[in-house]
Amino acid sequence: MGVVVSFEGDRARKPSFEPLAALVDEDLKKVNELILRHMDSPVVLIPQLAGHIIAAGGKRLRPMLTLASSKLCGYTGKRHIGLAACVEFIHTATLLHDDVVDESDLRRGLKSANAVWGNKASVLVGDFLFSRSFELMVADGSLEVLGILSRASSVIAEGEVMQLITANDTETGEAAYLDVIKAKTAKLFAAACRLGAVVAERPKVEEDALETFGTNLGIAFQLIDDVLDYSAKQATLGKTVGDDFTEGKITLPVILAFHRGSENERNFWRRCLEDLKREDGDLERAIELMEKHNALADSVERARHYSAIARDALGIFGDSPEKAALIELIDACIERVS
Amino acid sequence: MGVVVSFEGDRARKPSFEPLAALVDEDLKKVNELILRHMDSPVVLIPQLAGHIIAAGGKRLRPMLTLASSKLCGYTGKRHIGLAACVEFIHTATLLHDDVVDESDLRRGLKSANAVWGNKASVLVGDFLFSRSFELMVADGSLEVLGILSRASSVIAEGEVMQLITANDTETGEAAYLDVIKAKTAKLFAAACRLGAVVAERPKVEEDALETFGTNLGIAFQLIDDVLDYSAKQATLGKTVGDDFTEGKITLPVILAFHRGSENERNFWRRCLEDLKREDGDLERAIELMEKHNALADSVERARHYSAIARDALGIFGDSPEKAALIELIDACIERVS
Repeated sequence: MGVVVSFEGDRARKPSFEPLAALVDEDLKKVNELILRHMDSPVVLIPQLAGHIIAAGGKRLRPMLTLASSKLCGYTGKRHIGLAACVEFIHTATLLHDDVVDESDLRRGLKSANAVWGNKASVLVGDFLFSRSFELMVADGSLEVLGILSRASSVIAEGEVMQLITANDTETGEAAYLDVIKAKTAKLFAAACRLGAVVAERPKVEEDALETFGTNLGIAFQLIDDVLDYSAKQATLGKTVGDDFTEGKITLPVILAFHRGSENERNFWRRCLEDLKREDGDLERAIELMEKHNALADSVERARHYSAIARDALGIFGDSPEKAALIELIDACIERVS
Repeated sequence: MGVVVSFEGDRARKPSFEPLAALVDEDLKKVNELILRHMDSPVVLIPQLAGHIIAAGGKRLRPMLTLASSKLCGYTGKRHIGLAACVEFIHTATLLHDDVVDESDLRRGLKSANAVWGNKASVLVGDFLFSRSFELMVADGSLEVLGILSRASSVIAEGEVMQLITANDTETGEAAYLDVIKAKTAKLFAAACRLGAVVAERPKVEEDALETFGTNLGIAFQLIDDVLDYSAKQATLGKTVGDDFTEGKITLPVILAFHRGSENERNFWRRCLEDLKREDGDLERAIELMEKHNALADSVERARHYSAIARDALGIFGDSPEKAALIELIDACIERVS
């Protein structure tokens, strides 16, 4: 898979998350402080468990989107800090519940919270963080924000249920898969971005543009995640390869390989993903079939399609360091595979 | 355990939920319609699973409290319908997650949702209902309501985590147990009642009185529930006896029997509830020890203490059919044991 470098003045540099991270660095520190303060509870297991998953933390991509979007819209106040924390709380709550649903033992190379403290604690602390997120929104005081994030939360839950239903069903088509990732992943990206325009009190056209940006970035991001789950690149990031395969998740690389495959090959997919009857070398065969049918490369191509829409959505905003960093972020999301 | 009948004109009648149910009957139908409408989703598993638990439904005690409290406060509008539905959605979401945490196979004599559709779906549909509840609050448009219910949700989650921590710990004292049930049960009762005064725009003193009423009713209600789990009466209600014992939950009857028991008896409790090593006849022995130490009857006495506080909290309200029905409800909660 080729590298697309789209920087006029710096052709040698690979697109990265760094410029965005640098732009929001100060604000993100405040977000982290707020998160630590609001996940606290006299029930010590709560900050312990929440601290574990929040510290493992990943890139804080979603709160960074809220911070950058608000700056893109010229916002100079302080509400974006709290709203970014709300977004991260919702994300963390869904991660905790996801790991229970997926029965994951690892998250970002560390033991998952459910592996350390059990499923029960993960469910309940997820509920706590989710509730805390709404308390923070109430403190912010905007019904518009509450509407955006409560709606996003419902849609995320719908997406997760859809994913549960389509798991192990090799008949799942690309459209159904897209519905799942739009809901479970892209909706929170979209809300995180939209909040930037809302907090800056910008016209609806800018809210909508940021929502479109977030939606399509989120779709591209999830597509690349799903490709990485079958990629040697993943292993270098400290993550395990083949988790989706083990769980029988039907992601786009599987859908393409299944639809392009022979009946014999489809029986292989059915045995592995529907019947969950595994033999040695199954994951290797799955990756071989994906490569034979160009399923991974074409999934990346699909991601590029959505990333192009995300980029165009930013067209109505004037040039700024934030805009440049967000555009580089789109490319960086795609370039994770290379 | 004796029956306390406190009705001047009708000494023969046992206190019941019926007068309250009759008073709010029309409104409750509207609440049920609203619940059905808002639990709908194109993802059919969601209304299926949510419908199962909502239909199994129990008494709808919490939304009835919101409806009756608003009437007690002279409210004549329509917002109480939506708020009662919000309260029931939060309750249903916590029930779904509770059953996952408790690994329950039965709820109110029917198969629990997790037993039918699995833990994963129960976690996710719980999340959906919780999010929907907040969407409904946003539609209602009151930040005060959102503040009350988001705070209640956080406290409930804290209570559930506390319960998880104290499970299997026979050293748990009465104070810690009270903290758990105040949070996991009484907080939503309190919020449900408080909303009645909020929606009627009554002074803070009435809000606080209804909160006190709800808190103490909730504590009494949970105490009686915990007694019923060791009572033959429970079996006649189509519920299983001994669930708490099986799960190693530390409830007040256990705490009293443990603290009043000999070292030999305490070793019995430790084996059963901490080590979860069970022998035939253990439940019977547990009930015998509780009776020997008056633990069940004294737990009911504790419940009467809280019910008296609940009753007095209503003192500032003038006489009305709603007040009479709420007072009868307090007695009916206690009389479930007799």
